[in-house]
Amino acid sequence: MSPPHTSLPGTAPTGSQVTVISGGVGAARFLAGLIGAIDHGLIDGLDQAGNVTAVVNTGDDCVLHGLAISPDLDTVTYTLAGAIDPERGWGLVDETWRAMRSLERYVRVRPPESAAAPQWFNLGDQDLATHFYRTARLSEGATLTDVTDEIRRAWGVGIRILPMSDQRLSTIVTIADPDGGTMDVAFQDYFVRLRHAVPVHGVRFDGAAQLSAPAREALGSASTVVIAPSNPIVSIGPIRSLSGVDSLLAARRDSVVAISPIVGGAALKGPADRMMTELGQDASVVGVARLYAPIASVLVIDPIDEHLAADVEAAGMRCVVTPSVMSSPDVARELASVTLRSSG
Amino acid sequence: MSPPHTSLPGTAPTGSQVTVISGGVGAARFLAGLIGAIDHGLIDGLDQAGNVTAVVNTGDDCVLHGLAISPDLDTVTYTLAGAIDPERGWGLVDETWRAMRSLERYVRVRPPESAAAPQWFNLGDQDLATHFYRTARLSEGATLTDVTDEIRRAWGVGIRILPMSDQRLSTIVTIADPDGGTMDVAFQDYFVRLRHAVPVHGVRFDGAAQLSAPAREALGSASTVVIAPSNPIVSIGPIRSLSGVDSLLAARRDSVVAISPIVGGAALKGPADRMMTELGQDASVVGVARLYAPIASVLVIDPIDEHLAADVEAAGMRCVVTPSVMSSPDVARELASVTLRSSG
Repeated sequence: MSPPHTSLPGTAPTGSQVTVISGGVGAARFLAGLIGAIDHGLIDGLDQAGNVTAVVNTGDDCVLHGLAISPDLDTVTYTLAGAIDPERGWGLVDETWRAMRSLERYVRVRPPESAAAPQWFNLGDQDLATHFYRTARLSEGATLTDVTDEIRRAWGVGIRILPMSDQRLSTIVTIADPDGGTMDVAFQDYFVRLRHAVPVHGVRFDGAAQLSAPAREALGSASTVVIAPSNPIVSIGPIRSLSGVDSLLAARRDSVVAISPIVGGAALKGPADRMMTELGQDASVVGVARLYAPIASVLVIDPIDEHLAADVEAAGMRCVVTPSVMSSPDVARELASVTLRSSG
Repeated sequence: MSPPHTSLPGTAPTGSQVTVISGGVGAARFLAGLIGAIDHGLIDGLDQAGNVTAVVNTGDDCVLHGLAISPDLDTVTYTLAGAIDPERGWGLVDETWRAMRSLERYVRVRPPESAAAPQWFNLGDQDLATHFYRTARLSEGATLTDVTDEIRRAWGVGIRILPMSDQRLSTIVTIADPDGGTMDVAFQDYFVRLRHAVPVHGVRFDGAAQLSAPAREALGSASTVVIAPSNPIVSIGPIRSLSGVDSLLAARRDSVVAISPIVGGAALKGPADRMMTELGQDASVVGVARLYAPIASVLVIDPIDEHLAADVEAAGMRCVVTPSVMSSPDVARELASVTLRSSG
């Protein structure tokens, strides 16, 4: 067991490839930091964004108004294009909401049993074009992998962005219902409509989706695989649920590095901390280490959690300590740089 | 054969119902005039908008970006709601086009064979909510008749608005292709994308649609049926193509009144004049009379065409002359009033 340290020696091999297992906002910020680090020459052997691949969760995908919505894919693309709204962390900057606001009159006439005209999931007017394009291309028979690459190019993003699968996998959250029982809801119902303010009894993934061939290749052949600081259960979980992913990662565990999305016992964003507690896990870097130990050898944690480093190592992961709250591009860049150097 | 006249005696029976066979802009303006005439007490026996039913063409309906678009239904609804853009005659007033403009970046990356991200069919940001609602309700299993009524109520429109059918019927236009042959295109391709600037070799209606039961009832039981001043071939034509419509109208021909959409040999709007000529018909009130004589007994024409009144009557329709260019609400109101009084 090596001691925790803030900086690591070692050089990634020339021509190395990095694959980042990604959710939405946290992963997008990490990826932006990684590109910044590459651009600043901070990562030996990685000299262009084209050597980076993001394998992105699509368990949150949904259909609204007949449109195919892929929230995590879009958050990654928009963030790396520099077009994300910096306040919200999702959606486009300088966005307007005329279409959404115009749904109001229909809410008043829809039958009680109808869920049409949902206003709880905001789609900005500019953002709609992305969903229009994806929906039309999918209906023409294109794969989500194809369309995602087209959208990435449309935004001038240099890294490869791959959906985890070309088939639908739906993250289903079991929550308490008003009668004291439980009920299953789709992820966006839990996350957006209910504002993740209800206790979670369980999470499962519905569908016969398979890891896409390009995603499998990216996870298998990369010199380093990074698990981004995303929700371990509902962002990384769907990707891990695909057949073969955990065994593929376990087989190359020495070159898989994870970044804890839990800092000081709290999720940086979203409900990861509560969700881990509700599902009987420890909402701490130690709980994260227990989840990732089978598939990753290193856990990057924030200095605020340094006192837990020995427990992380006891859980089976080598521990690297570096500031991981990506409050500025500098921090994100340094986090990416340290993460990449910590591998192998 | 009675002589042409500008004003007719006679009173519609109390509690009478009027059904208007409708396309888009011209029909919408006529319906607005009819409501105005009712509100001004100009039509005996018709005391509320609720006694008026529009049976509307859906042959122009299309799916764009995955959204169900019903141009004529929306034009009628928006016009009667006072929300139509008065300059364009379609779409909502104070509209913005952020979603459409944002498609531009996708046009640049779509594969050559793809028709995704069409920019030739403008959908305004506010207008999108209508298509979102219709698409979502149809996917929930609602009929187009149900959804159209919900949309009508959302806009506070007092008349009944019925799609001609709950099934898809597609107006297909055969046009010249660049190689000297012909090709078939969907109506909106001809009308909007190609700006109806290409010669038409033929028009047909594809699909196994049936006149809806409420539309059949509205056409059968109304005291008067009006054929609105819409394109006889591609707006009224799809409705007439449905099984039973022509025979139903022929059986009650004496109480069916048509308004000529051709005034002074030209269409008030759109390509009706050229299309009639290209299809071997006379682009005049006489040509219109020949098309409608089997199903309607009266043709309302503008004073500019009064010299053709005898020819209209020779074609088998009684002729009523009154200003029919609806350049103001007053004219539309008077046109509706004269039209209703000309029946039976």
